[in-house]
Amino acid sequence: MERHDSSLLYAEVAAHVAALIDGGALRAGDRLPSVRRFARERRVSIATVLAAYRQLETRELVEARPKSGHFVRRQNPQLLPARKPRPALAPARVAVSEGVAGLVASMRDPSVVPLGAANLSAELYPIRALNRMLGGILRDMGTAGAAYEVSPGLLTLRRQLARRSLTWGMALGEDDFVITSGAMEAIHLALRAVARAGDTVVVCSPSYFGILHLLEEMGVRVVEIPSLPDRGMDLDALQLALKRSGVRAVVAIPTFDNPNGSLMPYEARVRLMALLERYDVPLIEDDIYGDLAWDGSRPSPVKALDRSGRVLLCGSISKTIAAGYRVGWIVPGRYQEHVERLKFSQSVATSTLEQMAVAEYLGSGGYDRHLRTLRGKLAQQVKTFREAIAASFPAGTSVSDPRGSFLLWVEMPRGVDALRLQTEAAKRGIAIAPGPIFAARHKFGHCIRINCGFPWSRPIAEAVRTLGELASEMAD
Amino acid sequence: MERHDSSLLYAEVAAHVAALIDGGALRAGDRLPSVRRFARERRVSIATVLAAYRQLETRELVEARPKSGHFVRRQNPQLLPARKPRPALAPARVAVSEGVAGLVASMRDPSVVPLGAANLSAELYPIRALNRMLGGILRDMGTAGAAYEVSPGLLTLRRQLARRSLTWGMALGEDDFVITSGAMEAIHLALRAVARAGDTVVVCSPSYFGILHLLEEMGVRVVEIPSLPDRGMDLDALQLALKRSGVRAVVAIPTFDNPNGSLMPYEARVRLMALLERYDVPLIEDDIYGDLAWDGSRPSPVKALDRSGRVLLCGSISKTIAAGYRVGWIVPGRYQEHVERLKFSQSVATSTLEQMAVAEYLGSGGYDRHLRTLRGKLAQQVKTFREAIAASFPAGTSVSDPRGSFLLWVEMPRGVDALRLQTEAAKRGIAIAPGPIFAARHKFGHCIRINCGFPWSRPIAEAVRTLGELASEMAD
Repeated sequence: MERHDSSLLYAEVAAHVAALIDGGALRAGDRLPSVRRFARERRVSIATVLAAYRQLETRELVEARPKSGHFVRRQNPQLLPARKPRPALAPARVAVSEGVAGLVASMRDPSVVPLGAANLSAELYPIRALNRMLGGILRDMGTAGAAYEVSPGLLTLRRQLARRSLTWGMALGEDDFVITSGAMEAIHLALRAVARAGDTVVVCSPSYFGILHLLEEMGVRVVEIPSLPDRGMDLDALQLALKRSGVRAVVAIPTFDNPNGSLMPYEARVRLMALLERYDVPLIEDDIYGDLAWDGSRPSPVKALDRSGRVLLCGSISKTIAAGYRVGWIVPGRYQEHVERLKFSQSVATSTLEQMAVAEYLGSGGYDRHLRTLRGKLAQQVKTFREAIAASFPAGTSVSDPRGSFLLWVEMPRGVDALRLQTEAAKRGIAIAPGPIFAARHKFGHCIRINCGFPWSRPIAEAVRTLGELASEMAD
Repeated sequence: MERHDSSLLYAEVAAHVAALIDGGALRAGDRLPSVRRFARERRVSIATVLAAYRQLETRELVEARPKSGHFVRRQNPQLLPARKPRPALAPARVAVSEGVAGLVASMRDPSVVPLGAANLSAELYPIRALNRMLGGILRDMGTAGAAYEVSPGLLTLRRQLARRSLTWGMALGEDDFVITSGAMEAIHLALRAVARAGDTVVVCSPSYFGILHLLEEMGVRVVEIPSLPDRGMDLDALQLALKRSGVRAVVAIPTFDNPNGSLMPYEARVRLMALLERYDVPLIEDDIYGDLAWDGSRPSPVKALDRSGRVLLCGSISKTIAAGYRVGWIVPGRYQEHVERLKFSQSVATSTLEQMAVAEYLGSGGYDRHLRTLRGKLAQQVKTFREAIAASFPAGTSVSDPRGSFLLWVEMPRGVDALRLQTEAAKRGIAIAPGPIFAARHKFGHCIRINCGFPWSRPIAEAVRTLGELASEMAD
């Protein structure tokens, strides 16, 4: 588990080295001082320097070469972090459903190159193992699946999730969970528990279009707070928004935000929790990418800091185990009873068989092994996509620099119209997610999100090249 | 398929005979005139008399004895239709969730005698055949279940449903359906498409508590229109309610209403459709019991009369094939596009594997065979329950007289408190559904709904006897 601590020396040391690289004092290919020498010079422990160098590796600023030490990596000058967007504090109606429709349609067409929706290739899931377990359940229990497994859901699954919560830095109990049909149902239940039509909630900007779409359908207004590439939601802007009364909830993806991949640092999580307490506002925390840190760390959800039950933690297996199984969960805190009732009223129960199979899979111990493999593959895939985008897209393009998950947020030169790019790409059998669907107000017109959830292949390579060519034409 | 026609002679003939029985001119054990003789006397065709006699059999007024003709059945004087409730036209807030919580809790305890929730025994489902098909899918397609099967859902399943719609007296296309996670999600989507918090919809009284519960959670108000045992929603009262503007939708279960089992006659369906047109109001039609007419007929949904797309037809396999599979559907008519979007925004997709298995099952031809068996068993079960209730419950009790499905609505003497009866029964390990949860305003305080979905057994016989004793004590 990753440890966050604002007072840790290693972060200072790493920041110092990063500044040297940034400023040009250390350049690509330069060798960093040896750990021992650097520790002596800076009067810190060897462990501190090792931690600092490891962080720099994670940030892809330096690389370790076996037996030779640490070297500054070649930085692609095109790959800058996206600029900080301006906050917009007046609540807005959401209207993204039109743009979303095209994306959903692309999900139904297997011939489309799937760079649009945040989907993983079937090969990346442990689906054969999972299906084998389901097959075993069907053989052993002839009538399984006949009966409702009503809200809050299958006990054995809730037990396995409670056990897993230890890896999230928490110790939840089986009665803290309500099983849902995926994370979106969890987020919907959370929203229903805390907000109604006409209410206002805070979201990030950019923000996952599925959440915006849901808010649009619910008639809930949003205040959009900038999400910064290096730390997620801008908490200064959030505080401004919360000072104005009337915000019913904050909705966020603190770990590997969708679309910009940002990871909220521990200090920011502490501050966010304090703000929620101070202004008495619940947080709907979407933790769906929480298990996908490439370095094997597992950032603790903000929920781990929650002492008053005001965080509603939502998750699912859709990005790690199987999307089509439709198994998710919510840890509703003080809203437990209400959310259990809401789940019953909205869909009675989640599929019995899938709950049984996922419980068995999580209990089998194979999940951690699978995660190690998956994280490594995703890290490699995203890196390849990122380099290909840098090579094909017009000058002035910047790409997000995530440390987990499998999405890239691409900011193109202002002249490129993402919606037109989507249309042109669709004609060529390529799906992308255009920037404007990630904002309530028309924004991010020159941005796109690229799904890197499918292994690099010739059609994908060609699709990225085509996208780059199209964008370059528009940029001219 | 049952044909409804207001002008049909056979209904007149049947009504004439029923009146003779009602008035005492024909008594239990009396032999009816032979078909041939009656046809000659009444100057109608033999087919008409046969149809009339068949209807009288379905209504359990007469019985056919092999080789001897038709005889008037012994009518149990305790088994009167429930009295007509008074309409209440002012919109009311719904507040049933507390009473529902106890019922949901009982669904999770397998040791409880299951006379509460509307559940079928696992043995009554074709679950082994269905699970075998799912097992085959898992073997043949190793990665099935990995990917989302996004809204509107699996094409092969929608195709099978379109084919089945012929048996409903309709000819729907595959693109008319959106697959849902059960009928309650379908009803929820329908409600979201037509109503918001603060709006008013019309429901029956009594009305399925799940729908009331959902409306309560949505903040939608209701006007409760009496549901009459012999024809469902009181359309005179409905017309009064629709005359006042502001009704956003009508929600009804025209075929075997839950809880009172009423079946809306064809003439009433025609009038209901005309009222919807005249007042420009959509109907959310829950057809979940539509396949469960004991006489093998298949009443056409009101949707079959819909020429303007204002009926949102909802159904599922939960009462016929498997409840735990969570497969349902909606035929949203003019709201198609909106409902597709809502489904995506609320839960993205329904479980892939279950959709595949149900599509295969429906395509296998086994469903009609299964339905024949199931209908026969349910008819027999309900009859047994009904007689046992008549034998055990206090004088003055009346029981509904359904022609399909597996629920009984029991109206006890006024002195009996259904909520107290629920509590006392729960202490003895028996679940029942108390009357008050079937109304927004406190009503039906002396009524209960009995689930007859489990085969008659000694524990069930004892439970019914215990309920009768408890009710008798309270009635004194």
